[in-house]
Amino acid sequence: MPDAIPADSVGIVAPQTAQFETPLRLSCGQELPSYQLVYETYGKLNSSASNAILICHALSGDHHAAGYHAMSDKKPGWWDSAIGPGKAIDTERFFVISLNNLGGCSGSTGPTSINPENGEIWGENFPLVTVQDWVESQARLADKLGIQTFAAIVGGSLGGMQVLEWSIRFPERLKAAVIIASAPNLSTQNIAFNEVARQSIRRDPDFHDGRYLSQQSVPTNGLGLARMLGHITYLSDDAMGSKFGRQMRHEEYQYNYGIEFEVESYLRYQGEAFTKRFDANTYMLMTKALDYFDPAAATGGDLAAVLKRAQCEFLLVSFTTDWRFSPERSEEIVNALVKAGKHVSYAKIEAAEGHDAFLFPIPRYMRTLNSFLTRVGKSITSEAL
Amino acid sequence: MPDAIPADSVGIVAPQTAQFETPLRLSCGQELPSYQLVYETYGKLNSSASNAILICHALSGDHHAAGYHAMSDKKPGWWDSAIGPGKAIDTERFFVISLNNLGGCSGSTGPTSINPENGEIWGENFPLVTVQDWVESQARLADKLGIQTFAAIVGGSLGGMQVLEWSIRFPERLKAAVIIASAPNLSTQNIAFNEVARQSIRRDPDFHDGRYLSQQSVPTNGLGLARMLGHITYLSDDAMGSKFGRQMRHEEYQYNYGIEFEVESYLRYQGEAFTKRFDANTYMLMTKALDYFDPAAATGGDLAAVLKRAQCEFLLVSFTTDWRFSPERSEEIVNALVKAGKHVSYAKIEAAEGHDAFLFPIPRYMRTLNSFLTRVGKSITSEAL
Repeated sequence: MPDAIPADSVGIVAPQTAQFETPLRLSCGQELPSYQLVYETYGKLNSSASNAILICHALSGDHHAAGYHAMSDKKPGWWDSAIGPGKAIDTERFFVISLNNLGGCSGSTGPTSINPENGEIWGENFPLVTVQDWVESQARLADKLGIQTFAAIVGGSLGGMQVLEWSIRFPERLKAAVIIASAPNLSTQNIAFNEVARQSIRRDPDFHDGRYLSQQSVPTNGLGLARMLGHITYLSDDAMGSKFGRQMRHEEYQYNYGIEFEVESYLRYQGEAFTKRFDANTYMLMTKALDYFDPAAATGGDLAAVLKRAQCEFLLVSFTTDWRFSPERSEEIVNALVKAGKHVSYAKIEAAEGHDAFLFPIPRYMRTLNSFLTRVGKSITSEAL
Repeated sequence: MPDAIPADSVGIVAPQTAQFETPLRLSCGQELPSYQLVYETYGKLNSSASNAILICHALSGDHHAAGYHAMSDKKPGWWDSAIGPGKAIDTERFFVISLNNLGGCSGSTGPTSINPENGEIWGENFPLVTVQDWVESQARLADKLGIQTFAAIVGGSLGGMQVLEWSIRFPERLKAAVIIASAPNLSTQNIAFNEVARQSIRRDPDFHDGRYLSQQSVPTNGLGLARMLGHITYLSDDAMGSKFGRQMRHEEYQYNYGIEFEVESYLRYQGEAFTKRFDANTYMLMTKALDYFDPAAATGGDLAAVLKRAQCEFLLVSFTTDWRFSPERSEEIVNALVKAGKHVSYAKIEAAEGHDAFLFPIPRYMRTLNSFLTRVGKSITSEAL
């Protein structure tokens, strides 16, 4: 709980809900007749509606990116360190929109929602949505908010994939794309980790073939395992090493299956905490969206050819110890953009935190983001005049 | 099945069993009143018993390292590519011993054995044995076979840890130590992966708190998951990439939780196959032995100080793409040996296969092993004359 709202916070914010009645045809061929998206906004939209920034969230993110919902909140939104007055994504200059994606479990229509066709909880029957579907639904949200063109669209990890897709699918609807700790598609190893996570969930008897909610059950064991595994891949070996090392719980080995090392305790705690806030079907669906994303597949793997149609300028950011989406993966995008003749900036940031680094306010990272967006903001201001 | 036994094979071999009636006091404080070890030997022990090589197995290995048990065998032993007449570990020159470690599930006393004290299957109550306990029990096997001093002790991964322990614990009982793709202790990330593997098993309701065998049950879901995860860490990202890439099962995405990518199929298959040959309690016990190993802990982390008492010469081998036991970890041992003034050779082998590389007959690796052992063998021959 903040004693007082910090001066550089967006303050107390309230989520809003947008209802969509125009059917949405999904990549999988199914159609969602109607759906809702929950979102938050920070800052003010200018009169020409040219200062909007869209934030795309990653695997387990949601719409609550900045500020507090109540004075009793223990923590602010997930990217509060980057969004606020005077911060890297400056809400004194920009109107920032953050939404919970379709298929999510924080208020937008997803597996925990009721399927209007049969009155039952969607569960595992919720259609597998893709990055393309998200971008389509985000564009409709922009329409509803009166935003024709975003000043920038920003996202890390799976969020970065959405930004990349935006640049290809709606090239005229964004001035700048900020793609952080991302990749043009998942590596085989990434897919493999996702598959183990999904199998962890599916093999939990409490999963009940995805109908656990209607059975008053939650696959906590499986979802917890998936999260434990995820945590290992989000952190670098070095970061785990300096955080926990071989630090033991007791002075001597206990020679049993209780907790011997502090890292075991950390993982179990993280796994368990996650099961209280996240839905297993949403988790699985998000991993599938990651697996499916591969914009270059349409051109037989030629990412530069696909990116030819992009019109915005790009900022790519990677982190040295990120092994889930390594700098090399960001550089594939950079190289394709260069080949396609696009305007691209790239920063590889020295950071110990692994993939998680994209959530940390690392000074050089925040400065890079801020100076890029300041420049973007200036061109908008001069245009708006 | 081999049509005929290859000329460079040790041929048809039969496991033997050694029974030990002298109680073995374990690191955990418990005492095993009696136990048995199953082992195989290849080649002939010379008259001075000076040409013996001990092979120490890794996490899921066993005593069947080379040759065939029957003409109907589909595959030879797990390290057949390295052990045989004229091979890197030359059975025309050396008498090779390979055993199943205590706590194993291939014939040596372990969790699947009967506890003589109560007539029940040990299960999870089998004491957690350590690398030190294994070395102690291996030394007793050597006594039984009339081997006072090994020409060499060789092992990869967890096997390499046993070799390191031998060099410290019984310095006068080995002339040479070959430590392949190993580490002086597990990194935090290694421990974390092990913990996820163990939790996968323990959270499977078919685990029954380790008493699954007496319940006519097998935790196939959990053990399979643990193995799937293991496989990801044994292979390099590159190796997985070149083996499977984003190769799909069907021409188009199916948008369901069936198999989309071939790597998913591979992992599921590997996981399932493993559950048919390996015991879950043994798997957990092996991961704990890995976690516990840390010979430098006795000197507050000074590995060189511990290694001062070693008398043998050392060969260390690492593989460029091994990220489970990276070259840096082998180099920690090399540096400590140099600091301790020991005779050490080191080869970092270019290999795409990740940690698994230690099981492959990579030419430079095999030549390194062979030339080191040939030199060791020569000094033995001249001594024996």
